[in-house]
Amino acid sequence: MLTYTIHPRFGDSDQLGHIHHLSIPSWFEEARNPIFKWFNPDFSLSSWNLILARLEMDYVGQIRYADQEVEIRTWISHIGRASFHISQGAYVRGECVALGGVVIVYYDYENRRAVPIPEKIREIMAEHYDENAPYKMKSGQ
Amino acid sequence: MLTYTIHPRFGDSDQLGHIHHLSIPSWFEEARNPIFKWFNPDFSLSSWNLILARLEMDYVGQIRYADQEVEIRTWISHIGRASFHISQGAYVRGECVALGGVVIVYYDYENRRAVPIPEKIREIMAEHYDENAPYKMKSGQ
Amino acid sequence: MLTYTIHPRFGDSDQLGHIHHLSIPSWFEEARNPIFKWFNPDFSLSSWNLILARLEMDYVGQIRYADQEVEIRTWISHIGRASFHISQGAYVRGECVALGGVVIVYYDYENRRAVPIPEKIREIMAEHYDENAPYKMKSGQ
Amino acid sequence: MLTYTIHPRFGDSDQLGHIHHLSIPSWFEEARNPIFKWFNPDFSLSSWNLILARLEMDYVGQIRYADQEVEIRTWISHIGRASFHISQGAYVRGECVALGGVVIVYYDYENRRAVPIPEKIREIMAEHYDENAPYKMKSGQ
Repeated sequence: MLTYTIHPRFGDSDQLGHIHHLSIPSWFEEARNPIFKWFNPDFSLSSWNLILARLEMDYVGQIRYADQEVEIRTWISHIGRASFHISQGAYVRGECVALGGVVIVYYDYENRRAVPIPEKIREIMAEHYDENAPYKMKSGQ
Repeated sequence: MLTYTIHPRFGDSDQLGHIHHLSIPSWFEEARNPIFKWFNPDFSLSSWNLILARLEMDYVGQIRYADQEVEIRTWISHIGRASFHISQGAYVRGECVALGGVVIVYYDYENRRAVPIPEKIREIMAEHYDENAPYKMKSGQ
Repeated sequence: MLTYTIHPRFGDSDQLGHIHHLSIPSWFEEARNPIFKWFNPDFSLSSWNLILARLEMDYVGQIRYADQEVEIRTWISHIGRASFHISQGAYVRGECVALGGVVIVYYDYENRRAVPIPEKIREIMAEHYDENAPYKMKSGQ
Repeated sequence: MLTYTIHPRFGDSDQLGHIHHLSIPSWFEEARNPIFKWFNPDFSLSSWNLILARLEMDYVGQIRYADQEVEIRTWISHIGRASFHISQGAYVRGECVALGGVVIVYYDYENRRAVPIPEKIREIMAEHYDENAPYKMKSGQ
């Protein structure tokens, strides 16, 4: 499990007085930066090799802008041949307020096709794999 | 089916040269405005009665900023007692590039609980219901 | 003057119950698409030739999500050798609620330098130039 | 001077391969959280007392998503009777890439008017005031 702290922005809120539902997957994306680094150690764009294929979000509770410390927990919840699942949760004072996940494909942009994930990266992913991650993708290759 | 046209913004793109995955659910939200109006004819915030419980997105193809006309198609794909599903698709030159949906709960903010959808609104929803909508939520009450 | 209509998204609002200040320059960007087309008729990224150097926004009044028709008016307010100013305003029921502008540089990305705007484009800009545009940039080349 | 570190999100980039111009004022807003706390110690929405009246941004250089540590520096650059200026800069490896500022009004939302800033808050602001802040608002009360 990886953990990361988000400090909500005023603009993350909406007129219902809570955090807007699309702010949370944006936080999750920020918390995935360390995973992107496994695949792209120098974040070089010219050799970028990941593409997002699916997104799921469950809104369990409401988050307020006033909740200035939101902990994002991140797990690898599935490791496929050419794709994998990242599951994530948002927690305020230890309580889960949102869960979700993404399917990411290891992708060759030049030839426009999925390619097998290298063994070296599979090993790093295995260290963060948790079969009991609190969110499992409901669909995705 | 409802249809709505989106003209992508330069900022909807990301460094991979295509539209960022979180821009599309934001477009879908804009295309849901007419549905919000069924529930809140004057968009009055003080009596707002909807809450989003779940979001799913499938990224079928890549969209470019240069694709300046993106058609959003919107269906009611499930009508429950106190919640319903909206399915949506993004189409470029007639080709589907993204699909997804949301679970929305008819919600009493004062008493913090789901309440049955009024018959009058159920009738409007029924007119836009399509059991063959191209996306079905994989989870959700 | 160019005019364009924006239909605010629920997520454009913030917890103060009005439109968040950063949603408006994003609307202005969408309304600049026709101008980008003068410079890049096919919106081709590989030959993109504009860079934004400065942004100014004056928040004159509050906008609500319920104000479902926001008119964006756009003027060319300065034409320089290698840069120009676009002034824009947001209007609800004819009343101005926000004004602002950007300085845009005609830019050669390969050689990383500003270059003179071609005469043909200057002529199109001149047709939309208004020395009495309601907003003038306070700074910018 | 206050300092704050931003870790750019993938979605902060645009198709030109750099950070989109509207991501930076959103970072600046996040870095203003400590200032909002001076005015609203518990971030309570019901007694919120600030409104943003003007925004200026100068894009000095390009920022990349790969620049994973962006330092935001924040100064109070003007203290008026009922409003003040916050100046901010974004720095990558010590080099300034963007500058800007906002005019914020101390605002009574109930009576819809600006009110004098309390002496106690003026004292805190004075500690962070810098007459040599690298950005000065070009306009604003």
